Amino acid sequence: MTEQLRQRLYQELDALLLIDPHTHINQLAPASTTLADILGYHYYTELAHSAGLAREEIEQEGIDPREKVARLMTKMGALSNTIQYSWLLEMAQALFGFEGDVIDQDNWESLYDAAAEKMAAPDWAQQVLSKSKLEAVFLTNDFDDPLEGFDTGIYIPCLRTDDLVFKLAEPAVRSRLQQATNYSVVDLASLRNSLEALFDHFVAHQARACAISLPPGFSPTRVSDGRAATALSALLQDGNEADLNHQSAIAQYVFWTLAELCDQHRLPFDLMIGVNRSVYSAGVYQGQDLYDSRVSLIQYQELFNAFEAVTFPISVLASVTNQELTSYAWIFPNVVTNGHWWYSNTPTFIEHDAAARLEAVPRTKQIGYYSDMYKLEFALPKFNMYKRILAKILAERFVVDRGWNEENALDLGKQVLRGNVERIFNVG
Amino acid sequence: MTEQLRQRLYQELDALLLIDPHTHINQLAPASTTLADILGYHYYTELAHSAGLAREEIEQEGIDPREKVARLMTKMGALSNTIQYSWLLEMAQALFGFEGDVIDQDNWESLYDAAAEKMAAPDWAQQVLSKSKLEAVFLTNDFDDPLEGFDTGIYIPCLRTDDLVFKLAEPAVRSRLQQATNYSVVDLASLRNSLEALFDHFVAHQARACAISLPPGFSPTRVSDGRAATALSALLQDGNEADLNHQSAIAQYVFWTLAELCDQHRLPFDLMIGVNRSVYSAGVYQGQDLYDSRVSLIQYQELFNAFEAVTFPISVLASVTNQELTSYAWIFPNVVTNGHWWYSNTPTFIEHDAAARLEAVPRTKQIGYYSDMYKLEFALPKFNMYKRILAKILAERFVVDRGWNEENALDLGKQVLRGNVERIFNVG
Amino acid sequence: MTEQLRQRLYQELDALLLIDPHTHINQLAPASTTLADILGYHYYTELAHSAGLAREEIEQEGIDPREKVARLMTKMGALSNTIQYSWLLEMAQALFGFEGDVIDQDNWESLYDAAAEKMAAPDWAQQVLSKSKLEAVFLTNDFDDPLEGFDTGIYIPCLRTDDLVFKLAEPAVRSRLQQATNYSVVDLASLRNSLEALFDHFVAHQARACAISLPPGFSPTRVSDGRAATALSALLQDGNEADLNHQSAIAQYVFWTLAELCDQHRLPFDLMIGVNRSVYSAGVYQGQDLYDSRVSLIQYQELFNAFEAVTFPISVLASVTNQELTSYAWIFPNVVTNGHWWYSNTPTFIEHDAAARLEAVPRTKQIGYYSDMYKLEFALPKFNMYKRILAKILAERFVVDRGWNEENALDLGKQVLRGNVERIFNVG
Repeated sequence: MTEQLRQRLYQELDALLLIDPHTHINQLAPASTTLADILGYHYYTELAHSAGLAREEIEQEGIDPREKVARLMTKMGALSNTIQYSWLLEMAQALFGFEGDVIDQDNWESLYDAAAEKMAAPDWAQQVLSKSKLEAVFLTNDFDDPLEGFDTGIYIPCLRTDDLVFKLAEPAVRSRLQQATNYSVVDLASLRNSLEALFDHFVAHQARACAISLPPGFSPTRVSDGRAATALSALLQDGNEADLNHQSAIAQYVFWTLAELCDQHRLPFDLMIGVNRSVYSAGVYQGQDLYDSRVSLIQYQELFNAFEAVTFPISVLASVTNQELTSYAWIFPNVVTNGHWWYSNTPTFIEHDAAARLEAVPRTKQIGYYSDMYKLEFALPKFNMYKRILAKILAERFVVDRGWNEENALDLGKQVLRGNVERIFNVG
Repeated sequence: MTEQLRQRLYQELDALLLIDPHTHINQLAPASTTLADILGYHYYTELAHSAGLAREEIEQEGIDPREKVARLMTKMGALSNTIQYSWLLEMAQALFGFEGDVIDQDNWESLYDAAAEKMAAPDWAQQVLSKSKLEAVFLTNDFDDPLEGFDTGIYIPCLRTDDLVFKLAEPAVRSRLQQATNYSVVDLASLRNSLEALFDHFVAHQARACAISLPPGFSPTRVSDGRAATALSALLQDGNEADLNHQSAIAQYVFWTLAELCDQHRLPFDLMIGVNRSVYSAGVYQGQDLYDSRVSLIQYQELFNAFEAVTFPISVLASVTNQELTSYAWIFPNVVTNGHWWYSNTPTFIEHDAAARLEAVPRTKQIGYYSDMYKLEFALPKFNMYKRILAKILAERFVVDRGWNEENALDLGKQVLRGNVERIFNVG
Repeated sequence: MTEQLRQRLYQELDALLLIDPHTHINQLAPASTTLADILGYHYYTELAHSAGLAREEIEQEGIDPREKVARLMTKMGALSNTIQYSWLLEMAQALFGFEGDVIDQDNWESLYDAAAEKMAAPDWAQQVLSKSKLEAVFLTNDFDDPLEGFDTGIYIPCLRTDDLVFKLAEPAVRSRLQQATNYSVVDLASLRNSLEALFDHFVAHQARACAISLPPGFSPTRVSDGRAATALSALLQDGNEADLNHQSAIAQYVFWTLAELCDQHRLPFDLMIGVNRSVYSAGVYQGQDLYDSRVSLIQYQELFNAFEAVTFPISVLASVTNQELTSYAWIFPNVVTNGHWWYSNTPTFIEHDAAARLEAVPRTKQIGYYSDMYKLEFALPKFNMYKRILAKILAERFVVDRGWNEENALDLGKQVLRGNVERIFNVG
């Protein structure tokens, strides 16, 4: 009975038109052109590498896309258990007309050709959006993105701020900032002016969020102008060689200023908490990052208290932090739970984490899911994975365990999938 | 099949008469007088505030109870997914004759009136106890509670010691201590005498436990008399302005002395580990506390080794600490698992945590549940939530997974619900 | 339907002939001689002690085995809920012809006699292996084990290195090292020579792994020869009194050297991460160790990067570390998930942890289970517990949730149970 109930709920959830509130889509090349764009997603390159394929094989310069796929396919058998492989399979079936249950060394070529043909259609991106029931997707734009030449009703800008906070010591970053804003950073005032100019630019182009990913050791705090000015001088003089204390003080200062600007411009500030970069330095591109799960939201106490009017949609990297996220969203009006990120974006963790949120955080304060995708083709299988798990939780934990009727369960599902995205980000 | 089995087990568990081993009931006003007492429980005020209701609206001075409920009801829709809302609904159905499935802005007034009428009965508290199948409830008394004017067979005293350990620097606390014991704290001897007097008073009034809640950073250790004397002098001289090292040394000294007195008086010492107070300082009353889940029971190693004759019923705030609790109770004869506390008192965490305990900790060393309630009406829905989860675990993990028969599963459930409470606290 | 599916999958998994990749079997006395060998396993002595039996009762010198069992049986009722008790029961039914469902004070004597009779058979060990469908078991040999007098095809040597890393300050350990290798440790060169001699000895006797258990605070790093030489001089001069900084530097040096030797000899290096020794110092033998779950694999970053050709099968003590293990095995080619260790070797944790691994780590990089047993009789119930959970996960999470067919699910189960053990350790 429960399986049929799950199926019914899934069908209803799957009928929704969605907005994907966090992706890494390039708005000027949103969809794939060959299967190499799909298999080149770090989830496949890093897993294939983990299963034994040399990085040099995967990242050989100038390699033909077909050859790259051929090499990665040698490891698909070793990955066939993974949920990531299941995304590939479901995508192939739904978008490329693939009819089998296995994609491997023996049959990938016809899939490659079939996909290439589909992808060659001039309206392929729109086809994918349509088949994926996506109305719009959030971008994660570099701060110096001109934000021109695309429809911001479909591709919604979002200001990514990692470089500003953590790499301002790099002359190249300051140079990009100057080019983007016409402000040369020479002191705190010009730094602040340049950041304001970025916000003005993004808001003028319909940006709906500011976003950043943060290492587990980061603990935001207000830094005095005096301290920040000293630190900025050191950075301007010594660049990457500047003392780490100065670099850290500037990171704090810029982060805090961004929160102030989010407040001013009424933009939610997406915090993605917990990643350590380049842990496996010999890994493939984007397959080097890991984490230390010993992080606590208590580190964000000062921030949450200081900016009561800023909404903070929070993603945590490790499932062991999910209870804190649940509790902080239950207590702080400005904290919102946001999706299932990266290493927690697999079914067992999603199920445990989503169930805990659904029963303890106000239903208006939960953003169910985002795809985090780099190419549009991934939204369909990723969202379907989430919808199946959501249907399972609603069936087992609400209808069976708590005696809810199906309609109410469905309403809850729809709200976390769609309604809250609209309201929290003011879109749709 | 499993659902019917769960139902049968639940019915049997629900037939038990229980003793609630931890509440915050005021023995002189144990039950509610209006729905404002129910909705004023921090679980509703903090969630309503989190969902957008201003603290000033909730805590306006002199506000009429009916108006307070009216304001809180504006946010019930946003909380209808929460397990806390389900407590309200089940309580209303079981105790106030409510017949709907939704309590909201449109229908709360009739419920308010119905509840007020029931609550006006002179034996309402006894009615609630009876409908809730509660034989007795533990209190959490301030150390200067006179403990008079009530039946200690129903309202069982428990000495709460938070103020003694963490606020002895406050002149008001020492003044209360002096009034309660006739000892003026001027040195270690008088401090110890006053603490002994408290224990004598509580034991004379049938107290059955000593209790305290502890921040994640606390790590008990024995402090020498010399160090403690120096610290106490500083506290007596400087009060709250005393150096934090001194305040910390006295906290350690008093805590250790309390453990000694528990040993002397054969009282279990309930430790509730992990809360950070006032994390969200602008929050509603009792809705400001959160935690840092990075806490370990290794911090209690010295204590558990030093007091082998003291039973320590332990509650942890975060589910990620539950495995340590399970393991420490499996190894240390004096460590007992105790209920599901606060932010872990929601179904997903209870299910995971209780399942882990039930299969690895001696069955004699598990206290299944306590309500933690402030008003008697909450025992019924909270215990029912737990009994349903316990029935689910017994059905799925014992009868199905391990092939137990129903009778044995039921015996295990009864023991953690009732038998162990009697034996461990020497009541019933 | 799911229950029947689970049963079918279990039956198929149970038909496999297995190799147990980690045990503490004494190859010269692999099986038990009386039930006291079974009940003397720390899982029973520590739980009986936790339930109230005095250590002196359990460990009385010269106690008759039958009397020891009689004493432990007084506490079996208090442990009847535990999975450890279920191991005893299943073992008694499968190996000793026991027909009841309860083993307790009233009926243990006939079981004792029946077991003793079975165990007296000269081929008892072989019978147990055969009934347990075990082809071979890995040992955990002291570094000075002569490794003679047994069939290394059945009892596969594994070099245990805890003493070398953490106890080299003890003269007795260095003396054992000298006797085993003929090298007297007087400087770094002789230390390294002696370690090389151990590896040569073990590899010559078909050792297939090196293993160590590590405290939560350990974080391997390369130590310079100069620093190590200074530290070694201090150790040679002061023994256990040597400064802890020197002891720690030598631990790091030896550990790193062992990794180099694993690299040279192509031996996997089993890391068992997270145990604190002697936390409960008054506990029974082997029942004193616990942990601090605040440990992260980020501590092993330098090691994993430095030794890309060494395979590290990793066990973690706490389930909260399992997601990190899953993620690190997903990214690092040389990190492999290894079984479910000690305090995480109970069904709720196994189910959660194994499910997370099975869906995100390449299927070639997961070692499903090892028994960790001291006596052969335990493999059967422990592996059966794991196989039932594996069947449950495959049924619920692969066949039902992800639509796999049974055959593919079974193949995955077989690979983590048997295939990967063969390939990773080069056996079978």
